Amino acid sequence: MSESLKTVLGNIQQNFKSNPENASVKFESKSSLIEGFHSRAFLRHHSIDVDEPKELGGTDQGANPVELILAALGTCQEITYKAYATVLGIPLESVSVELEGDLDLQGFLALNDDIRPGYQQIRGKVRIKSEADDATLEKLREAVNAHCPVLDIISNPVPVELELTEVNRCHLAR
Amino acid sequence: MSESLKTVLGNIQQNFKSNPENASVKFESKSSLIEGFHSRAFLRHHSIDVDEPKELGGTDQGANPVELILAALGTCQEITYKAYATVLGIPLESVSVELEGDLDLQGFLALNDDIRPGYQQIRGKVRIKSEADDATLEKLREAVNAHCPVLDIISNPVPVELELTEVNRCHLAR
Repeated sequence: MSESLKTVLGNIQQNFKSNPENASVKFESKSSLIEGFHSRAFLRHHSIDVDEPKELGGTDQGANPVELILAALGTCQEITYKAYATVLGIPLESVSVELEGDLDLQGFLALNDDIRPGYQQIRGKVRIKSEADDATLEKLREAVNAHCPVLDIISNPVPVELELTEVNRCHLAR
Repeated sequence: MSESLKTVLGNIQQNFKSNPENASVKFESKSSLIEGFHSRAFLRHHSIDVDEPKELGGTDQGANPVELILAALGTCQEITYKAYATVLGIPLESVSVELEGDLDLQGFLALNDDIRPGYQQIRGKVRIKSEADDATLEKLREAVNAHCPVLDIISNPVPVELELTEVNRCHLAR
């Protein structure tokens, strides 16, 4: 299984080395508010229901958007550990992640302009089971944290451009 | 329905105004790699399956982590539009979001150190249906983009602290 994943990853790397333009990809999301704070997002043929918990005015039909951010970070760490352990030939029996994010809702609710609406800090534990020695695992950790896409997205600024369109009038683009 | 959401949001704001310490909350995620790149994340009693598409070495049992980031941003925009429209008394019949993110996989795969592993840019369209005039909708857009938690998390740096633990030996904390 891991040997075949190693072959697949090796082939992907070889393809991108020979044709760097193939490595430029686009990911897409389409979502709509259904009722109250309940939204549904479509990612290719996958869908995810998102809502706020009852204490925040929702009907709790799914995790909320800031919880999705933590799920994205935890699973991205896991996938990146698996990918780099496979490519570097480091044994990795299991990997799991626990995260917590501090958020002050005064920011979201415009009650205090000095408080950001997003997470003030995210902390977590990555737990792995491996036969490798400490120096090897430290090398793995460094490779993962330097290349984990979601860790980069959250830790560093990403330029975001959003255009608002009024669907009936279609002249509000900006 | 919207009137009752307005009451709920008003009560939440009033509570946090009187007791700002109640506005400091923690969100949590626990996730584990199951097989290959397939992971499952738990957010309170909700769970989300995450995987990579087959072209990236996965078995496509869910959206991938960077797609979750787009889903989080789209649904957070929708919820924030709904919340601010409700509180400000601006009519809002529907809101939906389409996003695309540019990612160069040479970054993730360590093929080019000058290329970041995360999104280089995210672009999108927010489509709303509303009877409000342009100036009112512009005011709404400004309020939303100043207070949308996930837009802040993605656009600006969030400090992330991750500790690696080897579950058998328990002495790899850092």
